[in-house]
Order: sequence, then structure tokens, then C-alpha cells
Amino acid sequence: MKRIGKYTVLFESSPCIISAASSVGKTEGEGPLADCFDIINENDGISSGTWEHAEAALVKQAAELAITKAKLTPGDIQIAFTGDLLNQCTASTFGFKDLQIPAAGLFGACSTFALSLFLAAASVDSKMAAIAMAESSSHFCAAEKQFRFPLEYGGQRTPTAQRTVTGAGAAIIGEKKKGIAIKAGTVGMITDYGIKDMTNMGAAMAPAAAGTIAAFLNDTNTVPHDYDMILTGDLGMIGSEILKDFLREEYGYEISKVHADCGVMIFDGDRQDTHAGGSGCGCSAAVVCSKILNMLESKQLKRVLFAGTGALMSPLTVYQGDTIPCIAHAVYLTNEEERNGAK
Amino acid sequence: MKRIGKYTVLFESSPCIISAASSVGKTEGEGPLADCFDIINENDGISSGTWEHAEAALVKQAAELAITKAKLTPGDIQIAFTGDLLNQCTASTFGFKDLQIPAAGLFGACSTFALSLFLAAASVDSKMAAIAMAESSSHFCAAEKQFRFPLEYGGQRTPTAQRTVTGAGAAIIGEKKKGIAIKAGTVGMITDYGIKDMTNMGAAMAPAAAGTIAAFLNDTNTVPHDYDMILTGDLGMIGSEILKDFLREEYGYEISKVHADCGVMIFDGDRQDTHAGGSGCGCSAAVVCSKILNMLESKQLKRVLFAGTGALMSPLTVYQGDTIPCIAHAVYLTNEEERNGAK
Repeated sequence: MKRIGKYTVLFESSPCIISAASSVGKTEGEGPLADCFDIINENDGISSGTWEHAEAALVKQAAELAITKAKLTPGDIQIAFTGDLLNQCTASTFGFKDLQIPAAGLFGACSTFALSLFLAAASVDSKMAAIAMAESSSHFCAAEKQFRFPLEYGGQRTPTAQRTVTGAGAAIIGEKKKGIAIKAGTVGMITDYGIKDMTNMGAAMAPAAAGTIAAFLNDTNTVPHDYDMILTGDLGMIGSEILKDFLREEYGYEISKVHADCGVMIFDGDRQDTHAGGSGCGCSAAVVCSKILNMLESKQLKRVLFAGTGALMSPLTVYQGDTIPCIAHAVYLTNEEERNGAK
Repeated sequence: MKRIGKYTVLFESSPCIISAASSVGKTEGEGPLADCFDIINENDGISSGTWEHAEAALVKQAAELAITKAKLTPGDIQIAFTGDLLNQCTASTFGFKDLQIPAAGLFGACSTFALSLFLAAASVDSKMAAIAMAESSSHFCAAEKQFRFPLEYGGQRTPTAQRTVTGAGAAIIGEKKKGIAIKAGTVGMITDYGIKDMTNMGAAMAPAAAGTIAAFLNDTNTVPHDYDMILTGDLGMIGSEILKDFLREEYGYEISKVHADCGVMIFDGDRQDTHAGGSGCGCSAAVVCSKILNMLESKQLKRVLFAGTGALMSPLTVYQGDTIPCIAHAVYLTNEEERNGAK
């Protein structure tokens, strides 16, 4: 491992994604990416007594399937980095508690999957682990109950609101020499532009995403069109536009031609009434572990800079009138045969 | 870095603790460790409008003092691992949001400080960072409000209950060649013995602590008396007894002569009415970053195995009748000049 520039880390051994799996809920399974997900649960309750246990079931489904796809057993995973949106990371705890895998809990709100990929790649690159796992999850009903209103209340959502994705994604990282590598990454800084509207999180997160993407481009001496895709986690439609403006005006980078957002991709807003797009830790986890890795695998994409975006709020901070500080972490995924330099 | 045994990692370059700082509340400042803490706040409100902001102020105080002690600036810290007990890690977010340090959020309940030391040491050992920070915090009033009852309710606490420590501890890890090294560590597995009593968390956490300590001893081929101290985070008086029994009966290790617990050390239970001892992410963080590192510095202690212990519960899981799964992570701290092998 070595640092390049001020904020970016190069994983010199190019840790590879050995396998990945995604498990989602009914609405996600009716969206544009339906063909890409491994498991579509017909009922968002997933045979669980509570929404929190339903989310934990998604975590376990994705973890077990990723392990099976890699022809491994849980005992082969030497460390798992996992986190979710719920208070005290409930879904990760209950999803992993029977798996007997050493588990490092993370919190980065919806940026968690990028952070878990970063740390899993770092642990393989540094020989901390021969095989590591990255996972994160969210559940619409559990998140509404925790952050907004109980579903039974039937609250109306604003046009800027995003819908928390019911889904989990898990990736297994190892030393395999071929395939999709995690080549580099940037851990972001907490950024606070004073936004307090929890129904417009894309706007809150966009400056953090811009800062991390600009830091990565600057540190690696690359420009947006060096990538086939610059993918954000869950800025949604409104946050994505702000990100593009912000990168252009504040940092001088034009990413319009290569930008995509997991939150925009996962739902068909007009048909599914999902407003500004998807959000949640499970949004980027499920989209990266399905559509994006599929496209990298088939070489439709060769070079993807993925920046997970997180709004570090809690119900308590919102009720108490606090701002919503945000963060973004980035990893660079590539399927190019030659992997010298971050380019 | 290399793995030894099934679960343990050896940090071959022996990352050092360059500096550390602790900041605590009034009750902690009246306890047996009063002389050891760097900052004792006279008022637990710490000039903040809410208990959550008071905890964030502790985070910032400890971080800034550790940076100052190391003669560094925030810009020198290449990554910080930080977490707390509050929902969605509120104290870490608001404590770090103005520091401009790349921040990886962790959640391990009261085991968080051990996990943050482990990952900070790993990041220095792997050259991910030249200088890393580990921090965690808790606040009695913020935790009571979140997990139990508002203070105004005046709820009586059971004899088995522990008092959440108002405090934060921060340590800066770097490549310095002399001083206190973090030599090895073990990331634990989530363990669930079916305990549901949130007023007896020591009992819930003891089996997880036993599992991680036994894994470390087994992997490093060492025995309890190879250490001057085997330190647990916050098992308190009841959990400590269960731990000792558990290690003796389940794993054949007798640790009575070398065991100490931060939760037992921080309060004088009889005088301070703190029941079974201290708890919280800030308990082990503040005790390790004061008393323990002081004793290592002065060579009163040379070899300390520190196992942070966490009860992975949320108010929601408790209200919904769930069990309290637990986890423990361990790091081995030593001030011996020769540092070959984990011994």
C-alpha cells in the first residue's frame, strides 16, 4: 500500500473482488435493475417479525450467497466490514451474529459500502486478511420507522425526498490475480454546508461527494474522462445535478458525460413514485454488487470510480435542529488487464 | 502485517502510540483516576446546548489535545477511526466535523476504542497512513436519554447496572520507533448468549471477551501470566467475575492475577454510587488514554492485552425483546524494547 497525493491510497497488490451478491425487496425487484439482482424477496417482511430483523435477513442472504458463489465457507472470511443505517447498526449485528466471522462494524450512513470496500481491500492488500468481506444494507420500512414516520401514518413525501432502498450487497475481496480489482481509494472528510432538510439529502451530500471525487482525481492526476463511469451512491436526481454543478464550479471538473448514481439507477421514478431516487446504505451496495460489477465483469465498463455518499444524521440531531454533516468515501474499481498506476 | 494463528494479526513494524489525551466529566474527575485525566470538565454540559453536543465537545477536546501533545496539526492526521454509542454515531460526527481529518466511522458499542486502535495500528503498519488517530467517546446523560430514561425521570438503577462514563480518549499512532507499540490484535466475532437484560451488560459481554482473549492467547501461544495486565473495557464488577469463570471453565485460562477492568477502575462504587462500575465507549478510551498508557510509559506495566467489550444493542432491539449480541476486540500494547514475536 502506498499513499499518492494528499488523501488517496494505492492498493499495490490490486485486491480482487472474488464474488458478490445482492438481495433486495419487492419494489427494487420491480425496478429497472430487476434482471441484475441475485435475490428478489417477494415480501419485504422476509419471514421476520420486525422490519429490523427483515433487514438483518437481507444482510445474511447476501453474505451467504456471496460466500457460496466464491465456493468458500464463513470460516474462510478472515474479517468482515459491515454497517447499516439503523441505530447502533442493528441489521449488521443481527445479520452477522450467527455467521461466526470476525466483524468490524462501520458507520458512514449511506457511504458505508464504499468505506467497507476500501477497508476490505486495504486488509487484503496489507495481508491482514487473505479473504475479507464488505457489506452494507438498508430497509425502507425500518428506515421510515427510524428516521421519518411509521408507515401506518401514511405521511406524504416531498418531491425532493428519496426512497430508502430495501437491499443488501456483499462482496468478497481476495488476492486473486484476475478480474475486478480495487486499485485505490480515498477516505473522505466530514463536510457540513449547513443543510437541515432531511427530505433533501442529495443536496446535503453533494458537496461531500464533490470534495472526495476532486481529491481522488487530483491525487491520481486523472481527469473525469479517464473513467468509464464516475458513480455516486445515492445523491438521487437533485443531488446529482448539484454534484455536477459543484465539481464544475468549485473544482473545474466536468463529469456530466461519465456520471451515474445508484439512487437514480435503481428506480423508475415516474412509474414507481419514488420521487428523487433511491437512498440508503443498501442502495449503492445492491447496485454495485449487481449491475456495476456485472458490467465490469463483461468489460462494458473497465474503469469505475465509485464514491459512496452518506448523510451523517440521526433522528435525534434532526429533531434537535442540527445540520446534516455529510461524508463520501471513494474506491476505484477496474477490470483492465494492466493495472500499473491509478490510471 | 501477518496473521498468526486463526484470528490474530501481528503488526510487524510495531506502530507506536505517539501521544494520547483524555477528557472526562465531573463524576469521573472525582473518581480514583482523577490525577490521570488530561481534562476534567467541571460541568457535564461542556458549554453545549444538548448532551449530544456535550459528548461531541469531549471528542473534540481529546482529539485536539492529542494532536497538540504530538506537536502536529489536524492536517497531519491521515486517517481517524472514531465511533461512539449514540444512534448514527452523532458524537463522532459533530466532534470531527470541523477538524478536516479523513474519518472512518466505526461502530462496536463499547468495544469501539479497541477496534479503532486495531485499525489505526493496521493503517500505519500497512503504510496506508503515516499518522492515524483512534478515538471514542460516551456521555452519561446522552446515553441515559438514548438507552434508558431521561434524567428528569429519576429512574432507580439496579445493582447490576453500570454507569456510562462521560469521557473521550484519543490516541495518535505513528511510525516512531520507541515507546508504546501496538504489536498485535484480534478482531472478535459477534457472540450471543441470549441475555436480554440491558441493566446487566457485563454479563452479556463476558462470553465475547472470553472468546477474543482466548483466541489471542491461543494464536500467540502465550498464557495469561505472560502479560502484566489483561485489561477489559467495561465488564464492571459482575461481568469481570463471569469473565474469569468463563475463561477458566471454558478455555482453561486463569487470568485472576492479571485481570483489570476499566469499568471497575474508573469509579469508586461505594463512595460514588456507581453500582457495578463504569461502561460506555468512553470508559476504556479515557482509562487507556490516561492511567494505562501512563503506566506503560513509566514501565510499571510492560505488556498489556487490552480487550474492548461491546454490547451491540439499540433501544429498538431492547424494546422489541431481542437478545443483546456482544463483541470484543483486542490489541496488545507493549513498552518492551525488544519486540520480536507477539510475546
